[in-house]
This record gives sequence, C-alpha cells and structure tokens, in this order.
Amino acid sequence: MSNPAVMALLFDVFGTVVDWRGSITAEVKAFGQRHGLERDWEAFAQDWRALYQPAMEEVRSAQRGFVKLDVLHRENLDKLFVKYDIVGISEEDTDHLNRAWHRLTPWADTVPGMNRLRRRFILASMSNGNIALMVNMARYSALPWDAILGAEVARAYKPMPESYLRSCEALSLPPEQCMLVAAHNSDLEAARACGLRTAYVNRPTEYGPLQTVDFNATSDWDFIADSMIDLADKMECPL
Amino acid sequence: MSNPAVMALLFDVFGTVVDWRGSITAEVKAFGQRHGLERDWEAFAQDWRALYQPAMEEVRSAQRGFVKLDVLHRENLDKLFVKYDIVGISEEDTDHLNRAWHRLTPWADTVPGMNRLRRRFILASMSNGNIALMVNMARYSALPWDAILGAEVARAYKPMPESYLRSCEALSLPPEQCMLVAAHNSDLEAARACGLRTAYVNRPTEYGPLQTVDFNATSDWDFIADSMIDLADKMECPL
Repeated sequence: MSNPAVMALLFDVFGTVVDWRGSITAEVKAFGQRHGLERDWEAFAQDWRALYQPAMEEVRSAQRGFVKLDVLHRENLDKLFVKYDIVGISEEDTDHLNRAWHRLTPWADTVPGMNRLRRRFILASMSNGNIALMVNMARYSALPWDAILGAEVARAYKPMPESYLRSCEALSLPPEQCMLVAAHNSDLEAARACGLRTAYVNRPTEYGPLQTVDFNATSDWDFIADSMIDLADKMECPL
Repeated sequence: MSNPAVMALLFDVFGTVVDWRGSITAEVKAFGQRHGLERDWEAFAQDWRALYQPAMEEVRSAQRGFVKLDVLHRENLDKLFVKYDIVGISEEDTDHLNRAWHRLTPWADTVPGMNRLRRRFILASMSNGNIALMVNMARYSALPWDAILGAEVARAYKPMPESYLRSCEALSLPPEQCMLVAAHNSDLEAARACGLRTAYVNRPTEYGPLQTVDFNATSDWDFIADSMIDLADKMECPL
C-alpha cells in the first residue's frame, strides 16, 4: 500500500455486506404465507429493489428534498401492493414488512472478515440506508461498526460526491485515508473520483439469475477480493 | 416505566461515561515529564476543561459557524500553552496531546453496565465531542455504541434543543422513546424540556475538589442511579 496509510474502511452494505435478495425473498414469502397469498415472491423482492434507484434519483436530482430510505422503501412497497393486488394489510403488518430491510442477513464471510479488518481499521457503514435501518441491522446481524455514516449523515445519496466526501469529513480524515469497500464497480468508480481508495469484494450472486453486471472487478481497484475474509488476508489483518 | 417504551439510551459522555479529569491529568503529567516541564498539571487539566463551555458558547450564540470540538480543544490548548509558558512543542506532539480527549478512560462500572443496557436498548453517544473523537474513544475503551450521534451529527452543541431533537430524529424515534443518561442535572433538564426521558447517574468526583454541583439528583428524573450497573439493574436488564 502506498502512503498515506488507510485509516478507515467505508462499506457499501446492500449486496456487499448483506444478502438483501435472500433476506427480502424469505421475508416476503413468509408474509405471503401468513396472509394466505400466492404470488411470485422472488419477483416481488426483485421489483422492490428495482424501485430503489429511481426513488433515490428524485432526491439526487433535487425533485424532492432529502428523505430517509425507510420512507422510499415504504412508498415503493405501497406501489407493489397495488401491482401485486395485495389489499387489506394492516398498518402494523405493512410497517413490519417494510422493516425487513432492517433484518438483512450478512454473507457467511462478512462478520468474521469484518472482525479481523476492525483490528487494524475503523469500520463505518457508507450506505444509502438511513441511520435507524443501519443500527437495527447491525444489532440484528452483529455487524461491528465503529460508526454509522452514509446518506443520512451526508444528506446525499450515493453516488453523489457529497455522500463520499462528507463521510470522510465526519471521520476527520482526508479521502485518501479512507477506502470504500463495495461489490459494485460503479460505486467504486464514484468513490475513486472523490479521492478515496477502493476495494472490490465479489458478490456474483447478489441479483441471482437477473444479475447482469459486477461479476468481477472491471478496474484496477486497490484491492480485489472474493470475500471479506480474503480482503482481511490481503490487507494483512491478524487472525 | 410508563408508555411508550424507551427504545434508545442517549449518553452524555464526558464525566458520565468517562473520567475526563483523571485521564487528562495523567496525559498532561506524562507530557510534562517527556518535555522536562514542571507545572501544576492538575490545574492545567481543569483549566482545559474550563475553556470548553465558553468556546462552545461562541458556536451556540452563532458568533461562529459549527466547528468540531477537536478544533475548540486545540484552540484552548494553544491558549494554555501561553498561560503556562510552554513553548517549542512540535506540531506532532501538540496534536497528540490534543487527542488526549480521544483516549479517555471509562469509569469502572461503565463498560459492564453498558454491555447489560445494550441487551435491551439501542445505545448512542450524545456528546458534544465530534464523531472522530467518539469513534477513537470507543475503540480505545471498548464502549459498545450502536451509533455515534450528538453535536456533529446535529450540527448543534448541547444544551441547544436541536442537539437533542436531531439525535432522536436520527434514530427515527420520537423524543419520548429516547432517554438521556447523564451525570449533569442541567443536561437532563434541557433534554426533558425536549420531551426525552431522563436518567441521572451520579459522578460526585468528576471535578474533584473543584466540584460544586451534581453531587446528587436535583429533580425527579425517570431513573436515578449510582452507576451504569445500578442503572442496568433499575432498568431490568439481564445480567
């Protein structure tokens, strides 16, 4: 590693740290079972995720002020209830389902890898998820964050430059002492443009059969790893 | 406890969670020894803390925009170098000394008590210390925060109402589901005025011989405890 030394790792979360597709699919299937509803729940989960970028785009393009991802997830869920003809669900049940995004399960290598990385580096979430979502997920899945940063602290969604730069600034570190860890080449591209270091972690099953990109690193990122444990090895973190 | 249930505990940190006076006194004494300087280091530590409120007051009164506490601590340290006739200290040494505030030691009951409290509640720092300071302190002293909130996230120093209200908002919780834990009656007073619940933890030696207030609870706070372990007992947190 060239100087200056990396001090903090900033993590993309959905897809990189946790398996949102597996978790959300399991949650919507269980929801369907509870309510006696037969639908294509795998498609429902993918559709829910597909509405994520357009919803954030309204904020990025300043068509609306900053709103938390929980709110965007809920608006998108309400749209899917219409699309999938789901009616008569109580507010409590709907809210519980919306909070499925707070109960995402990490990939098997995530927690052991992060625990090793944490011995050498500050670990912060740098997700588009809001603070409460990230706090609840961390408690649910024992993610060892030193700080919850990202969109809500920066008041800007990735890949806006402010989202990266304000996260570094929150740690009182220059961008070159921060490294984004992500499974998405485009996210790393945006971070590199802001001066951050970059680590790609391969998650080739994130989108399942629908995955079309991010089967491997498409640039010479500072680190390229197959898992968080592999990243901990490559960054020379003690066992 | 009356409804609605408390979900999150927000902690004052300097004095409540950590013994700033003991830690800073030890650091400045060691600094003096390294540099062969004989001064009244206990007075130096107290003077450093005494400059804290006036410095924040310039921000609270909008005489200047929001600046991180690390910057205020450094400005105050530079003033004390003049007052105590300390010259010729390198930038690196001065910065290291300024970061003594990142290396504060918890009271003996803090970590065991917080670990129990964390089983039932979200724990967040709600300090005037900046994010980097709080992250480094947590790593130094194994403080089990779920989130670092407080002045820098709220862009307002306590006891401004915004500092309390924006911290609750960051957790997506109404104030009545958040409880401030503090050793300072005035801090609890300000939090209660914002609708938060309140827990007083007695720290009668925080200021040593100079302590003039906060020897005990001066109001009917929701909880009154002698230590974090006592608070965990009173809040019925499992061993």
